[in-house]
Formats: sequence, structure tokens, C-alpha cells
Amino acid sequence: MSIRARRSFLLAELANALGLEFRGNPALRLDGIAGIATATEQQLSFLQDSKYLPLLAQTRAGALILRKEHAQDYSGAALWSNNPYLSFAQAMQLFYPPEQPSPGISPRAEIAADVELGAQTRVEDFVQIGAGARIGDGAWLEAGVVIGAGVEIGAGSHLYPGVKVLAGSILGPDCIIHANAVIGADGFGFAQGAGGYEKIPQIGRVVLGARVEIGANTCIDRGALGDTVIGDGVKIDNLVQIGHNVEIGADTVIAGQTGVAGSTRIGRGCRIGGQVGFAGHIEIADGTVIAGQSAITHDIRQAGIYSGVIPAQEVRRWRRTVAQLHRLDGILRRLRGAADPASHSSSS
Amino acid sequence: MSIRARRSFLLAELANALGLEFRGNPALRLDGIAGIATATEQQLSFLQDSKYLPLLAQTRAGALILRKEHAQDYSGAALWSNNPYLSFAQAMQLFYPPEQPSPGISPRAEIAADVELGAQTRVEDFVQIGAGARIGDGAWLEAGVVIGAGVEIGAGSHLYPGVKVLAGSILGPDCIIHANAVIGADGFGFAQGAGGYEKIPQIGRVVLGARVEIGANTCIDRGALGDTVIGDGVKIDNLVQIGHNVEIGADTVIAGQTGVAGSTRIGRGCRIGGQVGFAGHIEIADGTVIAGQSAITHDIRQAGIYSGVIPAQEVRRWRRTVAQLHRLDGILRRLRGAADPASHSSSS
Amino acid sequence: MSIRARRSFLLAELANALGLEFRGNPALRLDGIAGIATATEQQLSFLQDSKYLPLLAQTRAGALILRKEHAQDYSGAALWSNNPYLSFAQAMQLFYPPEQPSPGISPRAEIAADVELGAQTRVEDFVQIGAGARIGDGAWLEAGVVIGAGVEIGAGSHLYPGVKVLAGSILGPDCIIHANAVIGADGFGFAQGAGGYEKIPQIGRVVLGARVEIGANTCIDRGALGDTVIGDGVKIDNLVQIGHNVEIGADTVIAGQTGVAGSTRIGRGCRIGGQVGFAGHIEIADGTVIAGQSAITHDIRQAGIYSGVIPAQEVRRWRRTVAQLHRLDGILRRLRGAADPASHSSSS
Repeated sequence: MSIRARRSFLLAELANALGLEFRGNPALRLDGIAGIATATEQQLSFLQDSKYLPLLAQTRAGALILRKEHAQDYSGAALWSNNPYLSFAQAMQLFYPPEQPSPGISPRAEIAADVELGAQTRVEDFVQIGAGARIGDGAWLEAGVVIGAGVEIGAGSHLYPGVKVLAGSILGPDCIIHANAVIGADGFGFAQGAGGYEKIPQIGRVVLGARVEIGANTCIDRGALGDTVIGDGVKIDNLVQIGHNVEIGADTVIAGQTGVAGSTRIGRGCRIGGQVGFAGHIEIADGTVIAGQSAITHDIRQAGIYSGVIPAQEVRRWRRTVAQLHRLDGILRRLRGAADPASHSSSS
Repeated sequence: MSIRARRSFLLAELANALGLEFRGNPALRLDGIAGIATATEQQLSFLQDSKYLPLLAQTRAGALILRKEHAQDYSGAALWSNNPYLSFAQAMQLFYPPEQPSPGISPRAEIAADVELGAQTRVEDFVQIGAGARIGDGAWLEAGVVIGAGVEIGAGSHLYPGVKVLAGSILGPDCIIHANAVIGADGFGFAQGAGGYEKIPQIGRVVLGARVEIGANTCIDRGALGDTVIGDGVKIDNLVQIGHNVEIGADTVIAGQTGVAGSTRIGRGCRIGGQVGFAGHIEIADGTVIAGQSAITHDIRQAGIYSGVIPAQEVRRWRRTVAQLHRLDGILRRLRGAADPASHSSSS
Repeated sequence: MSIRARRSFLLAELANALGLEFRGNPALRLDGIAGIATATEQQLSFLQDSKYLPLLAQTRAGALILRKEHAQDYSGAALWSNNPYLSFAQAMQLFYPPEQPSPGISPRAEIAADVELGAQTRVEDFVQIGAGARIGDGAWLEAGVVIGAGVEIGAGSHLYPGVKVLAGSILGPDCIIHANAVIGADGFGFAQGAGGYEKIPQIGRVVLGARVEIGANTCIDRGALGDTVIGDGVKIDNLVQIGHNVEIGADTVIAGQTGVAGSTRIGRGCRIGGQVGFAGHIEIADGTVIAGQSAITHDIRQAGIYSGVIPAQEVRRWRRTVAQLHRLDGILRRLRGAADPASHSSSS
């Protein structure tokens, strides 16, 4: 079951709003969106991947967004799109626009005297806002959010419950920060001294651009000296770790549980899978794509697709693989020697 | 040091409660449980693994749960069990039953007017409950919990401090959600448009069955269109990421820091190690066992044990292994050519 | 941009405070610290790595901390140090000392009647402190912190917003716990019964030594029977998982997203990279160094550097590598047979 749509559309209205041609009864009313296998006669759906073509014969959806090249496979109401997935995203935004919170400041919030609160902001219960913070017009701080001293929250940004934004952090407009994320904790910086590690005070900031989305329980550390900078339109999933002084270029997306060590610079328009680990102090070219679970230990200077993921196997077979892998160096040296006696002397 | 037991038992009472035969003084009083090496004369312990048999001669424990086949190795008070570890778990539940909170609603909680609160619920300070939520009988919401609009919390469920359950999520009875976990944040869904990524509103729900346990700081994302569904009796450890529209079958256990990408379906009764990564849109058979740190990139159709973990080595040796691995394709092609000239022409 | 320094120093004062010899005008005033490339004439900087030697000719920094052996490459004001990075850390502590919170108890905190609050503590809004807890002198609990029953917080410890410390946990003096970390959640302990998994009550504690630092959203689980113990001076980064009954020796550092399964013992003075996974019930020698993303599945008895990380490659090349790896066992068996017929019979 899904959340009920906030709006409904006639087919012709929808086609107009999405800028698409259509086929079917212009007055057909659609009151929500669902997957192609479950949509009802009152719902819109879409077909992106041709592997689902057989579903065209079975779907009960009231109308479909699909490519015109599939017109012959389907006789129902249709919206023709060259990019059905994007049109679907846009239709979702029409049917399910972001909730507009009613403005107001909870008497159970604690706001320092000199905080600048923009127009139409919503500040919920148990929110604490520190001295000198500035909260932009229309920003929405849900329950239990904590905003440190001097923080700036851009207009229209939405902070879900429990988000912590620590002193000095800057968030651009229209950011979305999911529950319990932490923006601006200290970076992990210590110097080994005679009596143990000595803490290096972390005095940089976190600076997020416009339209940045940060996942639940994700951590973006403040810079050690300079800033940690996340570019416009960057989307970061849950449980991601971004170290101090990392820079991430605009419109890069990073999936869950990935970690980026300190001072690494990731370019614009990159797509990073989940559970990837980046070493510190490296640079990743604009437009790079990295498969989940990969280890990135060196600069990537040329955009491309990179992977280091090794799919699991049945355990007995895998154990033999690992045993061979762990002896690989010696085995290959010997084999090369046996296969080609010359290689032995030339390599030594 | 451990928490003090809430109850004490005579040996005969305990044997009766656990359904086990016993040997020893029925009136022996036991006032807690400890490990076999540290238990005192007033404490119960257990022996599961035969590698600890030598400890039988040394233990000071007042009584032991053990297999009858070990009777000859030990002369003290005993409870005979075919599964000492399970009997130990049950004994732990007897000595250390879950804390029964005193019911009551803190005046420092903020509860929407139309919330349905069951009998005997406990709602602590700084809890916020949104419109239309229903809180089952005996549920316990600790400090700083936030419950979104329309959420249902099953009877007897216990939410530790700082848990966030976002709008529309459904929790079955007797769930335990550990501190700062986030249930129902948006899934990670975007479509690439001309001006950057466009957000796909996430309109599905999270639905947890009965007796589900979710670890601290774990995230279970809401579905994109349909629901994310966690079956009865599923146990999920800390810092786990469950993506949108994932389905997890009953009685599956998942260890810490594992991530499951969107729309993947994990069967019933699976055991998943820590730091495992599952690709999206795959299916895992009932009863599958997966070793920690494995990458699961394809369907697993047949139950079994799967692994992809490569144990670390001393670094110089490992670097040689990786160097060979990275050149493996070329090396093996050449070697096969050298060892068997026919293979070269047949493969080209 | 960085946080403004809380103090300024004359060059001679600074040299004296750091115990370093210097060159230059003793009355030169320095009002902050920055990187060598960005520091201004009023700022201090440092040179640690000789790869940055070319920057000596360009820096505008008012003074530098550097090795005396680099004196000939640089003519400006200098503080001579054998360990410039450590001296830099110490200078940072002088310019940016930890914020001293003004003591006081928020009327919006909820504190049980029998809590012992030390002198000069600061307890902020929406903090809840349970029965029997003891809060040491000068401790600072930021907004939304929750302290369970019987917890002890050492003098001078600083808990950032949203930290949860569950019942019975013990924190030593001068600990720093970053936002939304969870100390003392239940360990992951279940026994398989006839009707699903049965929970094993987790009755041990978490015990942190002195000067422990714990990262944002990190989880340290309580022990099952005994305690989980983190030694003095241990530094743990964000999003780390420490399982029940783990013991970590003094002055060990652990980077982000690493996981340590239950009952594993890590020695003193170890350095552990990010995203490392430790199996349970193993022991790691004092002084061990482990590269990020490694899997540690067995005891490490001898200190050294260990790695299991495989750097990613361009994806087509990597796919061929994985294909060969997955067939490695069979290929090598055949090759060894071909290269040396004797090896085949001797290995069987």
C-alpha cells in the first residue's frame, strides 16, 4: 500500500503538464501511480525496460508512459516519452508534491535570542537552535533537530527528525537532510605523541550547495583547516561517511554505506555505488562510475566505469579459489619458469 | 560486571521452567548467570562447545546446563539439555526478563490530538507522535522517539531512545527497535534529467512483522511505490541499510553493516553475515547462509553457504598477490598458450 | 573558511609554549593556523611531507613549523620541530582550545531525582538522565542526549547532541562522544529455537576508559554476559560497529565504517583503516596495522601491516580478472599438470 496521492489529473492535463503527446480519452481521470503489475484502472504506470514488454498484455493500468516504439505492443491509453523513467519521476512529482508544512514555531523549541528565522519557517518540538544561526524562508526543522551556533540553513530546506547540524555549517537552498544524519562532526584527526594520540582541533566547516540530499544516519565531517564541500545537486544515500576536507562535485550521486576518506576530491556527475571505499587524498575525474563495494585507492584521471567487486561463490569452491589466490604469486612464478625458462632469468 | 538479575531460582524450579532433567540439590538457589570461567557458586552457566570441556574441571559455577554425554566429565549440579545454548538463552530470559516499564505519558511528550494510545503504554520525555498514529497496548516509546503521521506501533513493541519512525510505517507486535534507528526514510530514487537529478517521491511504506528486532542506527527505507516488508521474527543488527522495496522473509538474521539495495528479496530463515552487500533487484533463496563481507550480485536460487571474503595477508605478500591478480587475465592466457598450443588457436 | 581562533600568540610565546626553537621576529603576532597554500601573513602553517617542499618558495604564511633540515629552502619565520605534524597538532590546541561551556542545567532537561551531578556540569535542553546516574565534574551533555539508569559519565567528558548512553554504561574522564552515537545498545545475540530465534538478554555493560573519542553514529554494544571494554586513549571514527564483549586496547585508532564482531580482542596501539571487518572471537596483537577494507578472519599473533584490499580496475578488464579468479582453482590445477606432470600425482 502506498501513500495516497495529493492530486488527481485528467489524461490530457497530465500530458500537457509533462509535455508529452498522448493517446486515449483526454478526460480519463488518474488518481495515482503504481507499478505496471499492480496499477489499477484509475492509476498511471510506466514501462522503461524492454524486458518487461510481456507485461503490456496484462497490465490493468489506466494509462502508461512508454516509448512510441512500443505502441504496437499495447492498445491502451498512453503518454509517449523518449525517457519513460524521467517522465515517471516528473509525474510522481505532480501527483505527490512535497508536503508543504504549515509554518510556525513550537513553544517546545529552544531558539537562541539572535537567531534569524525566515518567513514561513516551521520549527517543531524539541528543536534547539544556537546563537547566530540563520534559518532561510520556508525551511522546515522537524522534531529533535539541533542547529549549532552560526549555522546557515538555506531557504526551503527540509531537515527530518533528529538531524544534527553542528556549529558553522552552511546548507544551501532546497536541501533535504534525512533523519538522524550528522552534518559537521569533527573530522578524524590526531597526531601521535609521546603519551598517546593528541587531538587536532577541527576548525573547518561543512558547506552544502543547493538541492543537496543527504541520507539517514549519514555523516559529513567538518574540515580540519579548510572546508568539506558538497556541490549543488549532490545526492548521498544512508549511512555514508564523508571525511574532513572532502570535495564532491555537482550532481554526483553516492549510494549507501560508501566511505570517502579525508581530502579526497570526487568530480562532478559521478555515480558511486554502495559500500565503496575511497582512500584519502585522491582525485576522481568528473563523470566516473564506480561499482558497489569497490576499493578506490588511487586517482582516477579518466572517466569510465570502474569495479573491484568479486561476486561470492558456493563456499567450498570459494575456499579453493582463495587458497589459490593466496599462493598466486609463488604459483605463477613457478609456472612461468616452467613454461618459459627465459622468463625466469629476465625477471630476476 | 553485569546487570543484576531480576529474579532468582531454586535448581528444581529452574529445571521445571526450562523443561530439563537435573542432577543436584533441588533447593540450590541460583541468583544469576555468568560465563563458565567467571561464574560463582551462586550462578548458573552452560557448556555448548566441546572445545571448552577442560573448563569443566575448573568451573566454580553453582550449576551448569550441558549435554548428558558430558556427565562423566563433571560432577557438579547439572541441567541436561540437547541444546545447551538454547536452554541458556531461555534461562537468561527467566533471570533477566525484559524490563516492564511503568505505564504513563510524560507531560513533556507532544502527542497529536487524534492519536490512539493503547492501554499500559509508556511514552517518555521529548517524544513526538504525529496525527493519526496508533500505539498498541503496552508499547514503550523512550525519550526522543519521533512517530510520524499515520504510523502504527504494535502491542508490546519497545522503541529505544532516539528512534524515528516516519509517516505511514507499520510495526507489528513485540518489535524491538534500538536507539537512533530510522524506519521509513525515503528510498534513494532519482531520475537523471537535463538539469540534474530529479527526485522520485517515495510513496510506499515500511511494514515490519511481529517480533522484529532492528539494531541501533540501522535504516529501513520506505518503498518507492509499494512497500518495504520485513517478515516476522527477522533480526537485524546495527548500522544496516535496507533499501526501498526490499522484502525479507521470516526468521532471517542479518549482521551489522550489511546493505541490501532496492527491490531485492531475501528468503526466509537466511543467515547473513556483517558487511555483506546485496545488489538490487535480486532474489535469495530461503535458508541461504552468506559469510561476512561477501558481495551478492546475482540471484541465489539454491540454499547453501556462500562466501566472497578474502582474508588479509601480511602487506608485502598481499601486494604481490594483487599485482598478479590484476595481471591474471593476460598471464593465464599466455600460460595456457605455452602449456597447450592448441588452446590458443581454439580460443581465438 | 574556518572557525576563528580563540587566542593569538607572539612567535616567541608560541615557541615557548611548544618547546621549540625559532627563527624570526619574536614579536610577530599570529592569529590563527591554515594550510601552507592558503595561510596569510598573520597565520601559522607547517610542512610535514617533503613532497610539499616546492610550496616553501610560495607560501605567504607568517611562520612555519618545519624540520631544521629544510632551513636552507626557506627564509621566513620558523619553528624547528622534529615532528612538525605533532607540533602543528599542539599549536592547534593552543589556538583553538576546546570550547568551555558555561555550566548550568536547562529547565528543559529531565533529570531523575537521585542523579549525582558534578560541579560545573552543563546539561542542555531535552536531555534525559535516568535514575542513579552519575555525571562527573565539568561534563557537558548537549541537546537531546539520553543517559540511562546507573550510567557514569567521567569528569570533563563531552557528549554531542543526540548521543544515547544506555543503562549501566561507564565512561571515563575526558571522553568525547560525537553526535547520535549509541553506547550500550544490546549486542546481537539469539539462539535458534523451534519457533524462531529467541533473544538472549544482554546483561553486560560498556566500559570506556579515559580520553576515548567515539565518532558520530557509531555503535558500541553492551556485553552479553561480561563487558565490552574500550581502553584509554582509543579513538574510533564515525559509523563504526563494535560488537558485544569486544575489548580494544589502549591507544588504538579505528577509522570509519569498520566493524568488529563479538568477543574479538584488539590489542594496544593498533591502527585500523576504514571499512575493515573483523570476525568474532579472534585476537589481534598489539601494534598491528590493518589497511582499509580488509577482512580479518583469524588471529593476528604478530604485529605488522596487513591488507586484503583489491584496488578497482576499469570494468572490462576487471570482469576478465574476476572470470579468471572464479575459475582459478581449475585452471591452476590443469596448468600445473601440464607444466609438470609430476606435480599432479604428488598433490593427489
